[in-house]
Amino acid sequence: MTRHNSYTDLLIIGAGPAGLMAACWASQYAMTTRLIDQKSERTKAGHADGINSRTMEILDSFGVADVVMRQAVGNMDASYWGLDENTGHIRRIKCQPSQPQELSRFDQMLLNQGAIEQILIDYLHSKGRVHVERGRKAEDLELPDGSDQNGDDAFPVHVRVISANGEDGQSDNAEVIHARYVIACDGAQSWTSAQLNVDSDVWKTESTWGVMDIVPDTDFPDIRRACAIQSGDGGSMMVVPRENNLVRFYLQMNGGEGRSPNGPDKSEGSLEDLIDMAERALRPYKLAYKHCDWWSLYPIGRRLIKQYHVDRIFFAGDAAHTHSPKGGQGMNISMQDSYNLVWKIAAVITGSVDPAILETYQSERRPEAEQLMEFDTRLVYAYEEGSMEDGSEDGVEAVRDKYAGFMAGVAVTYSPSILVSNCESNTAVTRNIQLGKRLPSYLVVGQEDGCVVHLAQKLDSNGCWRLLIFSGDLHSPGIRDRLSRFAKEFSGRLNSQLGLQSTKISQVLETFLIHSSPRSSFDKSELLGLFHHFGTELGWDHAKTFADDPSYHGDTGQAYQQYGIDKQRGGLIVCRPDQHVGWTGDLEDVEGLEKYFSRFLIRRERA
Amino acid sequence: MTRHNSYTDLLIIGAGPAGLMAACWASQYAMTTRLIDQKSERTKAGHADGINSRTMEILDSFGVADVVMRQAVGNMDASYWGLDENTGHIRRIKCQPSQPQELSRFDQMLLNQGAIEQILIDYLHSKGRVHVERGRKAEDLELPDGSDQNGDDAFPVHVRVISANGEDGQSDNAEVIHARYVIACDGAQSWTSAQLNVDSDVWKTESTWGVMDIVPDTDFPDIRRACAIQSGDGGSMMVVPRENNLVRFYLQMNGGEGRSPNGPDKSEGSLEDLIDMAERALRPYKLAYKHCDWWSLYPIGRRLIKQYHVDRIFFAGDAAHTHSPKGGQGMNISMQDSYNLVWKIAAVITGSVDPAILETYQSERRPEAEQLMEFDTRLVYAYEEGSMEDGSEDGVEAVRDKYAGFMAGVAVTYSPSILVSNCESNTAVTRNIQLGKRLPSYLVVGQEDGCVVHLAQKLDSNGCWRLLIFSGDLHSPGIRDRLSRFAKEFSGRLNSQLGLQSTKISQVLETFLIHSSPRSSFDKSELLGLFHHFGTELGWDHAKTFADDPSYHGDTGQAYQQYGIDKQRGGLIVCRPDQHVGWTGDLEDVEGLEKYFSRFLIRRERA
Repeated sequence: MTRHNSYTDLLIIGAGPAGLMAACWASQYAMTTRLIDQKSERTKAGHADGINSRTMEILDSFGVADVVMRQAVGNMDASYWGLDENTGHIRRIKCQPSQPQELSRFDQMLLNQGAIEQILIDYLHSKGRVHVERGRKAEDLELPDGSDQNGDDAFPVHVRVISANGEDGQSDNAEVIHARYVIACDGAQSWTSAQLNVDSDVWKTESTWGVMDIVPDTDFPDIRRACAIQSGDGGSMMVVPRENNLVRFYLQMNGGEGRSPNGPDKSEGSLEDLIDMAERALRPYKLAYKHCDWWSLYPIGRRLIKQYHVDRIFFAGDAAHTHSPKGGQGMNISMQDSYNLVWKIAAVITGSVDPAILETYQSERRPEAEQLMEFDTRLVYAYEEGSMEDGSEDGVEAVRDKYAGFMAGVAVTYSPSILVSNCESNTAVTRNIQLGKRLPSYLVVGQEDGCVVHLAQKLDSNGCWRLLIFSGDLHSPGIRDRLSRFAKEFSGRLNSQLGLQSTKISQVLETFLIHSSPRSSFDKSELLGLFHHFGTELGWDHAKTFADDPSYHGDTGQAYQQYGIDKQRGGLIVCRPDQHVGWTGDLEDVEGLEKYFSRFLIRRERA
Repeated sequence: MTRHNSYTDLLIIGAGPAGLMAACWASQYAMTTRLIDQKSERTKAGHADGINSRTMEILDSFGVADVVMRQAVGNMDASYWGLDENTGHIRRIKCQPSQPQELSRFDQMLLNQGAIEQILIDYLHSKGRVHVERGRKAEDLELPDGSDQNGDDAFPVHVRVISANGEDGQSDNAEVIHARYVIACDGAQSWTSAQLNVDSDVWKTESTWGVMDIVPDTDFPDIRRACAIQSGDGGSMMVVPRENNLVRFYLQMNGGEGRSPNGPDKSEGSLEDLIDMAERALRPYKLAYKHCDWWSLYPIGRRLIKQYHVDRIFFAGDAAHTHSPKGGQGMNISMQDSYNLVWKIAAVITGSVDPAILETYQSERRPEAEQLMEFDTRLVYAYEEGSMEDGSEDGVEAVRDKYAGFMAGVAVTYSPSILVSNCESNTAVTRNIQLGKRLPSYLVVGQEDGCVVHLAQKLDSNGCWRLLIFSGDLHSPGIRDRLSRFAKEFSGRLNSQLGLQSTKISQVLETFLIHSSPRSSFDKSELLGLFHHFGTELGWDHAKTFADDPSYHGDTGQAYQQYGIDKQRGGLIVCRPDQHVGWTGDLEDVEGLEKYFSRFLIRRERA
């Protein structure tokens, strides 16, 4: 049989949130990427809708957070309602912020999954490197012999792809894509994991929930707040405000009796059943509706894949883990999976780092998914069995409080590895910064232009590593000498020890200086002298100097304090391309810095 | 000769910033709009680059401010340099904020005119109602007989349009566009005003300036700040930071001797001349360059059209006024012209208001242009003749300080007219709000969803008038009765006196309630009762209720104080579709409110 062969550095199977995020990341790199999806169009309504703070930060690093904010609604209030035994009706027990404000510069947002997909598709279109190939279905998968995967065949994974309507499959025209690496984002019923017989841990439970997106007509006062509601006969319900006056309702269905082995289908309940249940749960308030955007029934089931990759095939999103939608985490953990993975694969493909870093995908993301399973189990239990009363230890509020950082997506802390230093003594330099955790962002002011920026805005997703040099006050005794020595030694070591040339290093590692002197107290020329070695050899760019100093708006000057960096001592921070902190140390610890990079950066001979 | 006839409600001639802004506004209305431009493409480089705070507010009202901010640079610092007589070199005299921070929620931004045009073109594309017809040139203009313009011919202005390359003009295929109204945005050499022999006031001066956009290689420390520089032999110079590491230089050329009557052309100076002059002016700092994006020479000349319209043909932007680029005002005043005009023309075309309001275009915009001429004269004089020393009364800094509100575009205050009430007693209700001025914006918190918004974000450019009801504290004695009476009376009067029906009024007038009670102290149901008359007949929407109360972020709760509204007394504010305040009054003054609207809203019979 003749077949059409093609070659790509990276093949992504599935164009849901995980696959699209993977493609957005891949668009930053000089490599070829294919993205196939068997469906003919993106998600149209319903499905996931929660966007946590960390996902907003990631979307902002691609420059699309403001597009989301224009369409989405903010999830600000968390309101708890329980049964008033005197009246037999629900009453509000408390209303509080949906998460602590200091967690992130972004609030939680709510927007339907299809709109998120469209924003990522538009981003891909604007970059022009990767486009979604729809109606294309993977039909066969050939893996390299395990012993041979680093051998001659540079494109060892072979995936046979046909038209999703089956026509190509019958003809000689099926395409075989030869890929260096494959990311399977093909969802809960992952075809890829089935081909590879990947084992999962599975937790089955007996409860079934219904979900609907309607435009409600109601006098329930908290209809634009996220509510957890427990009523007596009405059962448990979760209410979430959404864009375009939509409101999402999650309703606990009656038991699991007579359910088909694959979970409920729509013959087991109707939209009218869901409306009836919601109306009962909301009493004494009224509920009616005219427009329903989407509805579904689902069993609560949890599954977590045992291995996050098989050879060069990696799993991300629902292909790796499934759980209930209660915590609004699914779309977030999925996108965060591929956000963790793709810069690593791309750095390996483009040749700058050791493939050993790919093992960190499983070591960093599976613990996160394990925590998700634990959180989801506790949250569902709280909805079904816990008490909504204030102070209850097994209630929804207690679970949400305990997991607030997790739910916001900002608490995730990757363990020590080839990519995360474990030198605890170094963290004394930056007391409030945790190795392995994404760098929190504070406002700083541009030394040269006076513009106020969030430091995170300088850490956008372009594939660069970042070295943040916190020098302290440049007028303190000795600081300038220390900084000058640092610049000289850093420049020398990265050239000679790592064999990196200036043109190369500035593509891989971007440097920022954040000083704590009054912005007006010195001129650029003084810094130019200071950074002579650095500047001439490593392309020091003065647009990358910032002051932790009050700005005209008065909203800056707290960064050192927030990071826990001493203004006399200063410190260095290395951020990975995904903004997680890989290394911290003193200005004098250039050797430690070099050792960190030498663990994974591939040494090149000097030209 | 046969000719192709077509019909449009509005014809816009010229697709520069003024014409594109006109088309963006026109896209909001149910009418037909054509936009022609004789050039084959948009501005590619150079030209205007200043975006003042008011323009940013306007762009935000179309939802595109964040797109601008991602491309532009902030203009934060204003730095003043003069001659140090001891050294014979320039020295920094002072550096200060480029404008007072309280003027607007947006800073001044800098971005080339072509990028702004592209953002407006993209907006038009996304709305899909109007597109730019390029390579189309107006060749002949027929005005209606003055006495007949309100007669039978609903499309009285006839504009013959041909291909800009002349081919159509020779054939029978030239198009004649019959328009109800025409807006001429065809620039400083306006073809339209020439056809109509429109008189202008003209001020000629003798100075010539050069302008260039380069990527400088320099050790001048303030190269990313807006600088006014006076050096001895080097003459006067203005330096402005720009996107993509570009910097704009404005240089005073030597006198005006031998200049051709139409001002200098490029034979009178070269880019190398400009570089030489800039290098001399910057000494002791060095200046070199590799890339020049654009350069030009221009005479300082001022011209202001005497009549802003002839019958149904209106002039906007450079077609109405020209001046020096010194103050960075040109693109702003131009876009603000058409932003003032189009909602009026559109309201007349779509039939809801009296054509008498069109006279306010001249009465509102020509005084603004007169002030521009005065400001420009003083600023150019300050650059050429004034002193840069601190405290100088004729220096650049003194002029910039005096005109700070004007330069930011937020000080413009339209005089009393059919559209701006002159009842001074009413302004006691809202002490810090000036009739005729755009409403300043402060943060408020959504009653139902807890989201923090700038009030201005609710006043987007969709053609609606807005009534802002500042009720005060709903728990104060008597407030609820006053509010209920207001709702009842307002609903009744606007129905019966103005003959507006509920479906109609909610399209024309949007209402917001901003109370000063703690957000958690009452529920929606209480308000529903209060606004019964309002709600059922006028479509009261509770997503439009806000609290002037601290939010979770702690950044709200100052609006009443900032507006100068007493929390016991409350007050009403009417904003025009362009956010300028048209009327203010007490909650009891429904009669005054009705009188205001009855001056221009066309009364309809009830269905």
